[in-house]
Amino acid sequence: MTDKPTLLLDAPALGGLKRRLEADYEVLCLWEQPDLDAFLSGGGQRVRAIIGGGEKTDTRLIEGLPNLGLIARIGSGYEGVDVPHARAHGVQVTNTPGVNADDVADLALALLLGLVRGVDAGDRMVRAGAWTRSHRGDARPSMKGLKVGVLGLGDIGKATAERAEAFRSEVRWWGPRPKPDVSWPRVESLPALADWCDALVICARADASNAKLIDGAVLDAVGANGVVVNITRGSIIDEDALIERLKDGRLGGAALDVFETEPTPAARWEGVPNTLLTPHIGGNTRGAIQAMVAMALENVRAFLAGEPVPNAVPD
Amino acid sequence: MTDKPTLLLDAPALGGLKRRLEADYEVLCLWEQPDLDAFLSGGGQRVRAIIGGGEKTDTRLIEGLPNLGLIARIGSGYEGVDVPHARAHGVQVTNTPGVNADDVADLALALLLGLVRGVDAGDRMVRAGAWTRSHRGDARPSMKGLKVGVLGLGDIGKATAERAEAFRSEVRWWGPRPKPDVSWPRVESLPALADWCDALVICARADASNAKLIDGAVLDAVGANGVVVNITRGSIIDEDALIERLKDGRLGGAALDVFETEPTPAARWEGVPNTLLTPHIGGNTRGAIQAMVAMALENVRAFLAGEPVPNAVPD
Repeated sequence: MTDKPTLLLDAPALGGLKRRLEADYEVLCLWEQPDLDAFLSGGGQRVRAIIGGGEKTDTRLIEGLPNLGLIARIGSGYEGVDVPHARAHGVQVTNTPGVNADDVADLALALLLGLVRGVDAGDRMVRAGAWTRSHRGDARPSMKGLKVGVLGLGDIGKATAERAEAFRSEVRWWGPRPKPDVSWPRVESLPALADWCDALVICARADASNAKLIDGAVLDAVGANGVVVNITRGSIIDEDALIERLKDGRLGGAALDVFETEPTPAARWEGVPNTLLTPHIGGNTRGAIQAMVAMALENVRAFLAGEPVPNAVPD
Repeated sequence: MTDKPTLLLDAPALGGLKRRLEADYEVLCLWEQPDLDAFLSGGGQRVRAIIGGGEKTDTRLIEGLPNLGLIARIGSGYEGVDVPHARAHGVQVTNTPGVNADDVADLALALLLGLVRGVDAGDRMVRAGAWTRSHRGDARPSMKGLKVGVLGLGDIGKATAERAEAFRSEVRWWGPRPKPDVSWPRVESLPALADWCDALVICARADASNAKLIDGAVLDAVGANGVVVNITRGSIIDEDALIERLKDGRLGGAALDVFETEPTPAARWEGVPNTLLTPHIGGNTRGAIQAMVAMALENVRAFLAGEPVPNAVPD
């Protein structure tokens, strides 16, 4: 036992935080618990807050940790938490909204530019000694005039659209709700956006309504000369349908930072052409991580002090 | 013999133009001539204009082709032609300025983003199955606030600076001449720029004055936490000094589309870490190639019609 309040870190990626937090808290690590039942009836009894690194929060934690009052997520997404279920058990949920929109949008452009201009393919060509005086790869489309369709015009979508405009790409968007304060044209539907664009950039937050929203029909509308970029959540794409179309050429390319399951198995992408794949690094910058951790810890501090938490997620 | 005027294509990369030009011209290909002397005294006698694809123009062509009156370069650079020597032999030189500045600047950003955010390293990690729940690579710097030093503020430099600003990077520049019409601060010297910046982006046109301008001392000023991006000409960097510093960690990284010799040998880059290498694709877009070829052919047409050529290179 200890006088310090007890926190539970739920993902190995947060392991680096442990030492820093131990000055003020007792810190338990979920991935170090070999037996969940033993944990729930042992150290778990003391847990006041979970710091969540983006993985699914097991409902048994919400039900089985008697002193749990807060799940403080690091990151803007919180689809891994059953929020009504948590609330029903008296557990608040917070996230870190808006912190990493710039970094994630930067990665969206890095992936879009890389795929459209063939940076990765060029790098492989140079290293394989395949660059010859007569061959440096096929000519590529320009970013100028490229039709960039943005799905979801929240913080990340807006930041992505602004950056695409600096490259003189043409931007349109779709999302379920019109936004009167933006100048980019909203098309009437997702199929219309997919049909119009050269590059569909997925910037939508994941929720129950948009699981596999980007299905075979949408991908077919993007087509053999089009590409898909996803930097928010893998659940929004029907990944099997995507892979099938990349393999047979019905879809021109895909640049993905997020996947149906993460880490995505390497074998799943063997022989899938025209892909650029990154390990969910959209928010993996020093500045964003520092800011997100600070925000999550402020939510923890406020909760333990009996104050309103600053970043309760919306209903 | 033929009634059509005779053109000489000087690089295998131009081979695709041959069929298209044959409607209006007799087209000879320099790389198909096994014996230069035989060519000079044979078909070479008829050559009125060379269409140059970016390689060095052999002075023996200028001296040995009696009817040559024009070297029409495809691309903005023309350091491969000894212009005074050509003029002394009554040969005009044209280029295609300004056409591909946007595309080249797009690639500068693709390389900068790719290197800074670790896109290529991430892609390798995913495909190697090295992405694990606890490891997705080190956190990276953000583009926001990144100090981007632009060397040379011509069309490409300005387009690069504009794009970097869309990512909220901080831009300063240096070039030999102040530019009163730009808002980005000009620092007092190249060493000062290298010392200040996180990323040195080389946007200068190559000329005799800037061969190996980016030498060991400049690279040391960029330093272990800095990166170099080059999208204009390989001659501007002391490439041996660059490779040495990448290997021992004195330089943080390099993203290069241009090299001391092109194609650069693959073996030269084996074991050189933190590099992103592309096969001189800055201008390799469908739109830019079409526009450059059209411009070069207009120079040829004007020359053959006895009109002033539109794109004579400056003295």
